[in-house]
Amino acid sequence: MWAQREITLEPRPRGIHLVTRETERGLPELAGIAIGLLHLQLLHTSAALALNENASPDVRADLASWFDRAVPEDAGLWRHTLEGPDDMPAHVKSVLAGPSLTLPIADGDLALGTWQGIYLCEFRDRGGPRTMVATIHGEA
Amino acid sequence: MWAQREITLEPRPRGIHLVTRETERGLPELAGIAIGLLHLQLLHTSAALALNENASPDVRADLASWFDRAVPEDAGLWRHTLEGPDDMPAHVKSVLAGPSLTLPIADGDLALGTWQGIYLCEFRDRGGPRTMVATIHGEA
Amino acid sequence: MWAQREITLEPRPRGIHLVTRETERGLPELAGIAIGLLHLQLLHTSAALALNENASPDVRADLASWFDRAVPEDAGLWRHTLEGPDDMPAHVKSVLAGPSLTLPIADGDLALGTWQGIYLCEFRDRGGPRTMVATIHGEA
Repeated sequence: MWAQREITLEPRPRGIHLVTRETERGLPELAGIAIGLLHLQLLHTSAALALNENASPDVRADLASWFDRAVPEDAGLWRHTLEGPDDMPAHVKSVLAGPSLTLPIADGDLALGTWQGIYLCEFRDRGGPRTMVATIHGEA
Repeated sequence: MWAQREITLEPRPRGIHLVTRETERGLPELAGIAIGLLHLQLLHTSAALALNENASPDVRADLASWFDRAVPEDAGLWRHTLEGPDDMPAHVKSVLAGPSLTLPIADGDLALGTWQGIYLCEFRDRGGPRTMVATIHGEA
Repeated sequence: MWAQREITLEPRPRGIHLVTRETERGLPELAGIAIGLLHLQLLHTSAALALNENASPDVRADLASWFDRAVPEDAGLWRHTLEGPDDMPAHVKSVLAGPSLTLPIADGDLALGTWQGIYLCEFRDRGGPRTMVATIHGEA
């Protein structure tokens, strides 16, 4: 069984955001899968998807702080500056965190750890809505 | 053909560890797949899976050293400190290396390069046993 | 429907290279898939695959510059030096960017964003030809 949908995540400010519920809500087909995989592909090059701690907002803030220090806007490295100072660092961060996730499905649900949640890593100041292609396949 | 199993990796000290054999040993279904994919999902947020050089232990030690320098415990950045000084750096490193792998299967075996092995990246001092969900699908 | 092929990318100098067309050209099966996934696995440990901006060559040059600064050859960290000064940094960069990609297929084409292209990240000075295993599955 295969299904594919586009899910558009609402605009968020720069930072790391938990989107597990918003993602699952867009995927009613999950409930019918006994064993399978969900693939999420963000269609953007200045944001990313990640899987990490779903409880403390401090973890998400600290992760954003680390990215900002490791890939600074004033690095003295950037030739690609015409889309604003936050653009080229956002591309680098997107490569580091990655624009897609593949997640196991078991008994009609995502089979994640107790503390795992899906992060939208918004690396632009004003990234706008972010679209992902969700592909589900598995056996009923 | 779909199969799904949990594999629990034995506790290891902080560092990068080769777990290719321990992973394959837990997956007898691999042998029956002509073309397929294996997806491995670690259910933790302070460790990661990676694919890299399977020969020299120095490569694994150097990789751990780089992570420790790039994401230091005393970065002066961390708000999330209540689980110990190794916890928040472990979350960042887990996002960078990633908690899952998808690997091709060909003729009953993982189709990896000669020098590629599966790494468990244990970023906590005492991470304990680490569990992953392995999902296999393919054609016989 | 499953298909699997090896694609050998021609040798490229150290740097970030757009290989979307070279990859698609090697996969005539894509055209017959209505919904599916393409998995690409690089069989090397000192190069990586990534998905990012497909227009400006400056983005690719800046990404390469960032990797060279973040993972320097003279880091004073490396024990594994016997394969040359560019080797151990290449292993670290390969773990950060990752050696594989999973991409959605829709209506006979890769379902990527307008600005997304497939990057070969060549981290060695003389990496030679790079081979990947491409696994396609989906429904016709």
